[in-house]
Amino acid sequence: MTTHDNDAFKPIATVDLAIFSLSPAGLSVLLVRRANAPFAGEWALPGGWIHIDKDLDLEAAARRVLKEKTGVETPYLEQLQTTGSAGRDPRGWSISIVYIALLSADDVEKRRDAMAEDAEWRPVEGDGVGFPIAFDHAALLKEALGRIRNKVEYSSLPGHLLPARFTLSELQSVYENLLGRKLDKSAFRKRMAEADFLEPIEGELRRASNRPAQVFRLKDIKSLALFDRRI
Amino acid sequence: MTTHDNDAFKPIATVDLAIFSLSPAGLSVLLVRRANAPFAGEWALPGGWIHIDKDLDLEAAARRVLKEKTGVETPYLEQLQTTGSAGRDPRGWSISIVYIALLSADDVEKRRDAMAEDAEWRPVEGDGVGFPIAFDHAALLKEALGRIRNKVEYSSLPGHLLPARFTLSELQSVYENLLGRKLDKSAFRKRMAEADFLEPIEGELRRASNRPAQVFRLKDIKSLALFDRRI
Repeated sequence: MTTHDNDAFKPIATVDLAIFSLSPAGLSVLLVRRANAPFAGEWALPGGWIHIDKDLDLEAAARRVLKEKTGVETPYLEQLQTTGSAGRDPRGWSISIVYIALLSADDVEKRRDAMAEDAEWRPVEGDGVGFPIAFDHAALLKEALGRIRNKVEYSSLPGHLLPARFTLSELQSVYENLLGRKLDKSAFRKRMAEADFLEPIEGELRRASNRPAQVFRLKDIKSLALFDRRI
Repeated sequence: MTTHDNDAFKPIATVDLAIFSLSPAGLSVLLVRRANAPFAGEWALPGGWIHIDKDLDLEAAARRVLKEKTGVETPYLEQLQTTGSAGRDPRGWSISIVYIALLSADDVEKRRDAMAEDAEWRPVEGDGVGFPIAFDHAALLKEALGRIRNKVEYSSLPGHLLPARFTLSELQSVYENLLGRKLDKSAFRKRMAEADFLEPIEGELRRASNRPAQVFRLKDIKSLALFDRRI
């Protein structure tokens, strides 16, 4: 046995989640208020230790934390990055494996009662939430927002924040909301058709101000479709 | 102290590297022959425990392993992904934080004597090296190759595998080699100019078969330039 087989030489490891949903105010992120030291009473990204006796793998650990905090089981989940250093946690050399989860408006609504008492949705403001959060979580949240905003440009990401059934106009609104700019309607529809990630719901039309609009759902709620070039 | 503050509940954590260079045979990856169990005598990606007494952060750990194996200190280094599960290492619940490193032809040549005795360059064949390697490293290598091949389509990645000084024809050859298809010369040169990652070396021309060609270097050897759309 070498010194590095010794448990005393192992870093601390947590899985932390940047969980996003769309509210009337725009993109929101789930924060939890910490009960214990360090940073007791402060807000942080939801996360937790890996339970090596129960979690089969990292994604299972992420899904467990997600379910504990939101009641949701199967949204879009993506590993963002792993950060680790001697100084980021006062308890010792610490690794955080960070995941991004996107919750549909339906999931947020249906699971409202299942949400943990210490958790709250907070609107995104610029690169964060407008107030300090625990550990290096402000930097992790900033990275997550960068990844999301970049992916909006070339993926089906906004569709994962909508209710399960939506019209193309509603989808275009979410793209415009996240991009912060208007899109040409016919170019947008052409790109969505090319990317081939929407499924029309047979016979289901929604009446808007002028003519009835086809209702769609995502072909796959667990993965993003990627475009060949930016929208 | 909760049970999860206890060292016995911490996973094992290693940093593992997919280190690539370009040889006359094409893309090559550095493998090391394992001296100790598990998988003693088998080939694996180079890696090691995080030294929580010495490594300031994960990237420092990756650079330490890189230097130990190749003698190289400052190439392009990118975190690929983190894998972790109960079953991937017979010693216990194990996390591997995987990095990709790209070594320039000059670094490979200059550091030949500094390379670890247990390390060897092996040509990439398809999604791997054509023979089994230890742990889940074949899957990690496949992921790394997927990331690299995808990035060739929309980044300056091939430039990081060339010698420090190269012509546009040499750069185009590496793109073509990694993409496995021919590119139009004038469209290629237009895209390189737009991407703005090359610096002409003043007054340095290389004589080829017909007319003298301008010699270039990368503006930044530590990060990739990303294109707006695929090449």
